[in-house]
Amino acid sequence: MTLTPADTAFLDKLRPQLPEGTLRAPEPRYLEEPRGRYNGQAAAIAMPRTTQEVATLVRAAHDARVAVVPYGGGTGLVGGQIMEADGPLPLVISLERMTALRGIYPQENVMTVEAGMVLADVQAAAQEAGRLFPLSLAAEGTARIGGTLATNAGGVNVLRYGNARDLCLGLEAVLPNGEIWHGLSRLRKDNTGYDLRNLLIGAEGTLGIITAAALKLSAIPAEQGTAILSVSSPAAAIDLLALARDQLGETISAFELIHRQGLAFLRETLPDLRLPFDDLPEWCVLVDLGLPKGRAPQDELAALFEGAYEAGLSDDGVIAQSEAQREALWAVREHIPEANRRIGSVSSHDISIPISRIPEFIVEGGKRIAALGDLRINCFGHLGDGNLHYNVFPAQGKDRSAYEHLRSDVKRTVHDLTHEMQGSVSAEHGVGRLKVGDLERYGDPVKLAAMQAIKQALDPNGIMNPGAVVPAGR
Amino acid sequence: MTLTPADTAFLDKLRPQLPEGTLRAPEPRYLEEPRGRYNGQAAAIAMPRTTQEVATLVRAAHDARVAVVPYGGGTGLVGGQIMEADGPLPLVISLERMTALRGIYPQENVMTVEAGMVLADVQAAAQEAGRLFPLSLAAEGTARIGGTLATNAGGVNVLRYGNARDLCLGLEAVLPNGEIWHGLSRLRKDNTGYDLRNLLIGAEGTLGIITAAALKLSAIPAEQGTAILSVSSPAAAIDLLALARDQLGETISAFELIHRQGLAFLRETLPDLRLPFDDLPEWCVLVDLGLPKGRAPQDELAALFEGAYEAGLSDDGVIAQSEAQREALWAVREHIPEANRRIGSVSSHDISIPISRIPEFIVEGGKRIAALGDLRINCFGHLGDGNLHYNVFPAQGKDRSAYEHLRSDVKRTVHDLTHEMQGSVSAEHGVGRLKVGDLERYGDPVKLAAMQAIKQALDPNGIMNPGAVVPAGR
Repeated sequence: MTLTPADTAFLDKLRPQLPEGTLRAPEPRYLEEPRGRYNGQAAAIAMPRTTQEVATLVRAAHDARVAVVPYGGGTGLVGGQIMEADGPLPLVISLERMTALRGIYPQENVMTVEAGMVLADVQAAAQEAGRLFPLSLAAEGTARIGGTLATNAGGVNVLRYGNARDLCLGLEAVLPNGEIWHGLSRLRKDNTGYDLRNLLIGAEGTLGIITAAALKLSAIPAEQGTAILSVSSPAAAIDLLALARDQLGETISAFELIHRQGLAFLRETLPDLRLPFDDLPEWCVLVDLGLPKGRAPQDELAALFEGAYEAGLSDDGVIAQSEAQREALWAVREHIPEANRRIGSVSSHDISIPISRIPEFIVEGGKRIAALGDLRINCFGHLGDGNLHYNVFPAQGKDRSAYEHLRSDVKRTVHDLTHEMQGSVSAEHGVGRLKVGDLERYGDPVKLAAMQAIKQALDPNGIMNPGAVVPAGR
Repeated sequence: MTLTPADTAFLDKLRPQLPEGTLRAPEPRYLEEPRGRYNGQAAAIAMPRTTQEVATLVRAAHDARVAVVPYGGGTGLVGGQIMEADGPLPLVISLERMTALRGIYPQENVMTVEAGMVLADVQAAAQEAGRLFPLSLAAEGTARIGGTLATNAGGVNVLRYGNARDLCLGLEAVLPNGEIWHGLSRLRKDNTGYDLRNLLIGAEGTLGIITAAALKLSAIPAEQGTAILSVSSPAAAIDLLALARDQLGETISAFELIHRQGLAFLRETLPDLRLPFDDLPEWCVLVDLGLPKGRAPQDELAALFEGAYEAGLSDDGVIAQSEAQREALWAVREHIPEANRRIGSVSSHDISIPISRIPEFIVEGGKRIAALGDLRINCFGHLGDGNLHYNVFPAQGKDRSAYEHLRSDVKRTVHDLTHEMQGSVSAEHGVGRLKVGDLERYGDPVKLAAMQAIKQALDPNGIMNPGAVVPAGR
């Protein structure tokens, strides 16, 4: 199925069907992405204000076989929001003017919002109603909720509250034929047919455009507490997680693994940041708790440390005694990506591994990377979810430019090992355009064929975000 | 697409491809269902022992355009497991010989099991490894895990642990073309393409046969506690739920609403069962807690009652002081369906409603049912999930046979009101064959068209469980 460029004739025919100012000349910011790997093109940026306008746009594109690129906050890390300049000129549809809070139902722990609402604004609206919307990630000040759902975003609270898909009860969306699916259900239980919601979540805009969502809210924990505890090894970290679960149940909000390399990078690049240890331990974990009324997080964390010490899992640590100390501990974890940027990675990887195999992965990965050259590894991430950010850096004093020739070998080595250990080469960032090749290499062929059949069935003209996620048919 | 009966020629060609004893003459139990509404037919019952054998069976059916009915424990309540005698003779595939525990990973809180494992055996295997598999429902001694996933079963622990789909990390399945999808992932985070898992979960065997599943486990709560508290109204019950969440966070495992009518039915039909009240309150709720080590459930429940009493939400109640008392309180809730059977309903409904609209639904439903005739309503169920079993009975001293003429009006009245209030007419039992008409009446037409397109794409010959879930094309 060949696509047609979104030429002047197409735009001229479309313009009178929409309010003035809906179609705009493309500004550069819609054609770039955070890592600078993709440079896009677009005939126009459409800025609809209603779901009906999105439907008008998509129907016209469907009829004319014009490519559509849905655009949220533009923070995706895999090029899902950018169609490169070598394809037929697309229409970009930005949801940025659809930012309404449609309703909030504190008794139900539900809110309904339009897709263009910025994630931080969603969090703030929930907070104002005395509730928590727990999805939390570095880009939350810019990312829009529609995009975080389309990519099934993760973040630091997945351990307790789940991925984006676990926080969504219903969707309103425009399907590739321009029809509106009214699926904005606030129900916790609804077994009436195929799960279209979860099909659109994680499809990265290739099966339609999410225009609104019903989101699951939670109680705001009355008390929060944070500690960073040393551990002797990744295996000890996993044992500590089990111990924490025994003692603290579902109140563990985050359980993050940090390697000495990450702390060393912080010390080197951000010397003003206060680290919780003078002698850096080989490994440590950040544990975050959210407790109901009447329980003291410091006491619970002290009891956890005591148990860990007795079991030989930890011999050092810091428990935050104030909100300021809590923020300081979180700052350690949150500044690791910035330190990484300053050092300059050879190759970064967003992988997940079955949790019990992580120790083995880390040992074997270290060996295989060492065999490739003089490299440093900063492995950190969401241990409770089995999700590691496994990033590989130049040797001390060298620059990444000296390693260009090794980059693809490093990536292949990490991804091959991940696949051997039944892991995933895209844990939380998605496939976008960056990892379509990985999906072809590592994906189950029967699943890929099913994806192609579903894509063809719902988007027969192939207009929705072409080139993203779905490998071309074979 | 016309289907071909599974005739002797088909079976004769299939038989040598499979171990002896795989194809068997149909016994009546495979052609009946619990409510006796459907009477099925089958050319043969296939009893594969491996996924490869399931694939051989499905591929042969696909090539010959023969209908396939997947069969788990046979406990479904909507006729999904029975193809009626007026269609082309199908092949029934029972998973009952695929019952292996493939692996258990306590550190990961994961187990992998074959689809034919009985739900109670799944629970027991988890328990033996010191873990909880929380899916729990009345039919758990007979239902098989593959069927509970295919129907996205609910039950009493959804409030805390989610529906069946929330408890599944990965699937292995035979798709309608006979190919095996190896998706038995143990990962918590995996964003590599469309969510085929959630598409098969809830598809009730119309998009393939689940042959194995990776299941999410939880910690076994160290302490459990149960109370039944009176409440003055459904609105008070919802306020009590909010209070309980504030005080107890995620430790509330169940929150069940019970009406006086249910208690009265118990007193009438099961007089030996001990009720928690001498004077039956208009409404009451059963609250169940699962707590980590070191917290006393009686104290927590007493504090909850105190708070509820001060807020004017409850003025009476019983808190279990022993495991025997806990079981006695649960017995009240668990015997309501049996009491209902003894009374004999005119029409039963498995509905869900946005939680904040439940009080309004109950008032309005009462009025509309009263307008139809002299009827009694027993409304009970999983309030925390917005899921009500809203069952309508004859007046005292009358028999259901006197109300045959009203049955369809009653059902229509309840379902219309549910739909008006943005609820679902199938909360946890699924669509099967019983509710395809409801799906056509109440379902979103754009979603139905998408379902038909997906069904056609993955099962072009229409062999998988024909007549279930998906309305015929229009």
